[in-house]
Amino acid sequence: MYRDRRRKWLIRPRDTPKLHTHLGILDVSSLVGKEYGLRVFTTLGDELVILRPTIEDLVMKLSRKTQVIYPKDLGLIVVKLGMRSGFRVVETGTGSGATTALLAYLVQPGGRVFTYDLNPEFQEVARRNVSKLGLEGVVSFKVADARSGFEETELDAGVLDVGDPWEVVPSMRKALKPSAPMAAVTPTTNQAERLVAKMRDEGFAAVETVEIMLRNLEARVGMTRPSNTMVGHTAYLTFGRTTSSVQHG
Amino acid sequence: MYRDRRRKWLIRPRDTPKLHTHLGILDVSSLVGKEYGLRVFTTLGDELVILRPTIEDLVMKLSRKTQVIYPKDLGLIVVKLGMRSGFRVVETGTGSGATTALLAYLVQPGGRVFTYDLNPEFQEVARRNVSKLGLEGVVSFKVADARSGFEETELDAGVLDVGDPWEVVPSMRKALKPSAPMAAVTPTTNQAERLVAKMRDEGFAAVETVEIMLRNLEARVGMTRPSNTMVGHTAYLTFGRTTSSVQHG
Amino acid sequence: MYRDRRRKWLIRPRDTPKLHTHLGILDVSSLVGKEYGLRVFTTLGDELVILRPTIEDLVMKLSRKTQVIYPKDLGLIVVKLGMRSGFRVVETGTGSGATTALLAYLVQPGGRVFTYDLNPEFQEVARRNVSKLGLEGVVSFKVADARSGFEETELDAGVLDVGDPWEVVPSMRKALKPSAPMAAVTPTTNQAERLVAKMRDEGFAAVETVEIMLRNLEARVGMTRPSNTMVGHTAYLTFGRTTSSVQHG
Amino acid sequence: MYRDRRRKWLIRPRDTPKLHTHLGILDVSSLVGKEYGLRVFTTLGDELVILRPTIEDLVMKLSRKTQVIYPKDLGLIVVKLGMRSGFRVVETGTGSGATTALLAYLVQPGGRVFTYDLNPEFQEVARRNVSKLGLEGVVSFKVADARSGFEETELDAGVLDVGDPWEVVPSMRKALKPSAPMAAVTPTTNQAERLVAKMRDEGFAAVETVEIMLRNLEARVGMTRPSNTMVGHTAYLTFGRTTSSVQHG
Repeated sequence: MYRDRRRKWLIRPRDTPKLHTHLGILDVSSLVGKEYGLRVFTTLGDELVILRPTIEDLVMKLSRKTQVIYPKDLGLIVVKLGMRSGFRVVETGTGSGATTALLAYLVQPGGRVFTYDLNPEFQEVARRNVSKLGLEGVVSFKVADARSGFEETELDAGVLDVGDPWEVVPSMRKALKPSAPMAAVTPTTNQAERLVAKMRDEGFAAVETVEIMLRNLEARVGMTRPSNTMVGHTAYLTFGRTTSSVQHG
Repeated sequence: MYRDRRRKWLIRPRDTPKLHTHLGILDVSSLVGKEYGLRVFTTLGDELVILRPTIEDLVMKLSRKTQVIYPKDLGLIVVKLGMRSGFRVVETGTGSGATTALLAYLVQPGGRVFTYDLNPEFQEVARRNVSKLGLEGVVSFKVADARSGFEETELDAGVLDVGDPWEVVPSMRKALKPSAPMAAVTPTTNQAERLVAKMRDEGFAAVETVEIMLRNLEARVGMTRPSNTMVGHTAYLTFGRTTSSVQHG
Repeated sequence: MYRDRRRKWLIRPRDTPKLHTHLGILDVSSLVGKEYGLRVFTTLGDELVILRPTIEDLVMKLSRKTQVIYPKDLGLIVVKLGMRSGFRVVETGTGSGATTALLAYLVQPGGRVFTYDLNPEFQEVARRNVSKLGLEGVVSFKVADARSGFEETELDAGVLDVGDPWEVVPSMRKALKPSAPMAAVTPTTNQAERLVAKMRDEGFAAVETVEIMLRNLEARVGMTRPSNTMVGHTAYLTFGRTTSSVQHG
Repeated sequence: MYRDRRRKWLIRPRDTPKLHTHLGILDVSSLVGKEYGLRVFTTLGDELVILRPTIEDLVMKLSRKTQVIYPKDLGLIVVKLGMRSGFRVVETGTGSGATTALLAYLVQPGGRVFTYDLNPEFQEVARRNVSKLGLEGVVSFKVADARSGFEETELDAGVLDVGDPWEVVPSMRKALKPSAPMAAVTPTTNQAERLVAKMRDEGFAAVETVEIMLRNLEARVGMTRPSNTMVGHTAYLTFGRTTSSVQHG
């Protein structure tokens, strides 16, 4: 459930029969069975819109115990990894399962996400989050240390979202198919620096680090301007492709 | 085929038995049957890497008669539209078919892309491009004016990449499922302004316009810095969701 | 008076003998006569630093009734206009006098700022602000409509910070020396568009519009990263140079 | 001499009696004594404009042996340091003298710039550059290692533009008045990191590092958009203020 222009509420009607907002109360139970897209009014006469949550809404509204990756960053990762139905991908850490859920959403049907985290508590939260989205059948949750290696091989892509991604690079190299892409998310320049050096050492090709800045444009007739507020930084994204042995020709 | 760090060459071995580069010549025919990820040497002793082209490589290297949407922008569109296997999506204009190809890649299996363009010549180029990627079975090409309406209904998502997207907004509203998302790509602020006004008029909710700036970080031990060169602007991205009639409660 | 890293307080000891902060109380009166740069402690044992206010501190801390121009934008304006001692410059509107004060600071000794505003109330605030900085001798305040013309001629530079700067462009052209630079500050793209068109019509050369984005880098050993928070937009800056009649050669 | 919209030529009529451009030839000698701002025509009928060079034009067009600081960065430095007539400021390294020239321009009359460089060749180039602008009377050129200390004390402000600015921070602290501001320019995050740590160690307050991104807006009626091309990065700017001994209250 969503209201243009400011706020969104993500609810289940059976859990929230009445939605209390600063815009008044909405009788949610009376809306069950109605189609999405409907514009409805609160008791204070304010208009809300009932929207089917997109995967973006779901991912951004999941219970979080950890920082999530932003849609602007997830988008580039998805395109760079070439995510699609049938892919077998590995991820560590699982965190709150937000990225896990998006990857699971994209690899279905026929694909699978293997997600590793050392912290069983995170894994539990993530498992619940992924189940809420009905994607639990696509994900294998593993409480294990990816630095010691992934159990899978011949994977199509991999995502690293841990504090010391360079420690997992050798495991990633072994788990991925030759020429397969990986992505890593690191907040600091120091992490990116160390990660890139390790990826080059491990023979990764096409290694590059980027950052994405997203700014809203307030497009209004005769008074269009970029938004005053903006997220300054989320993370650096590092990409690379595995390579195999050298052929001396 | 790709070389870290600078340039890429996308070739078919049967069309390019010998690859001539400023780094020397590579005997491509001798590599047929070898696995991806292999590091090979040119006659001048420079190292190249054989990489399986990702969908990003393919989309960016297609024959172009028109401007293509950049990966940084495509990524956010894909996440915002919640693209996945089985989706039925509409797009106009087709242009060179680069976006068409990415959408087709994502909706397979089970989904379909309906792409409209007034220009039969563009459609021909796009059809060839999509075929090169083996995705022609997923796409319906239509030489038609989307301003007069799309033939499909109950679609899951839509993409507008035309000079006058506001003219297509009513067609889009009718073609999409209630609550379904659309994205539009416009280079100028004036287009974004006019588009947003029209989308609000047509009852779209959650309307927002953003721009994405991507900057490379040159991550090198002890001398990390953002890249000097950067693309300043590609396009504004406008998103929205269809709504249906108002329920007075 | 300033405290690294978060907050600043700009005070006069005679007005604020005791400074109450969330970090405890500081006995300001005991510090009178002490040199700048001193590190002192509050009653709660937190360290503050006594700093001589810079022109930037003063300009950003003035009483405001209007939006002020940010230092990042003022900096480029100052360099583009070539501001220096002895310059005679014109400005409209006066607003809170923040820009007025910076210009006055830069043109002394020997120069003068002529500042126009239609609103006598703003002019009063600005006059008090400029006086607080001891710069009142360098500024002529004028409650007048610059659209009808400036009273001065042969000026070295001009600054426009009004909602309809295009209406003042002809006055500016007449007031400036041939080849002299002007700068204008406009929040929206629509204003920049209209302004640039008018400047070209009025024969201005070297017309260009830019925006400046400033982002903090949190430079910390081993964990350096751009700041999460960032101002997304303040204003577009438009620059140009007057030209005189055409010589047909 | 300048031509809207693309290129500029900075010439002396006595050195360049005829200006040959891709737009045709301009008889410069016939223009001597004419006023600035004049629009003139080349032999090919293209229009040029004669503009008095601003300090920005001069600084950006000086002979360079080294990287110069960009106007966007110089602007913020000037405002942060509160540069004005009468200031006594120190700078190292001199480089090509571009920053030296701007500082000299701003501190006249009554002020002085002391500029240090280890490289006598750079100093010679800088001296010639500063002389071309008639500012040699305001600058003291010193071939010396600032890491061993500046000869001046009680300075109003300082600028560091060397590869190892942290090595000069102690010298800077001793040379500046208490509470006086300094600025440093460093291309890499690693330099900024190390510099900030050293500045904190040496008791500097209000330490902050920023970067400035400048983007052109192509403001054209009905088709306004940010420029495609953009400089991605020039340098990080670090600022701070000296402090003196601690007063235990």
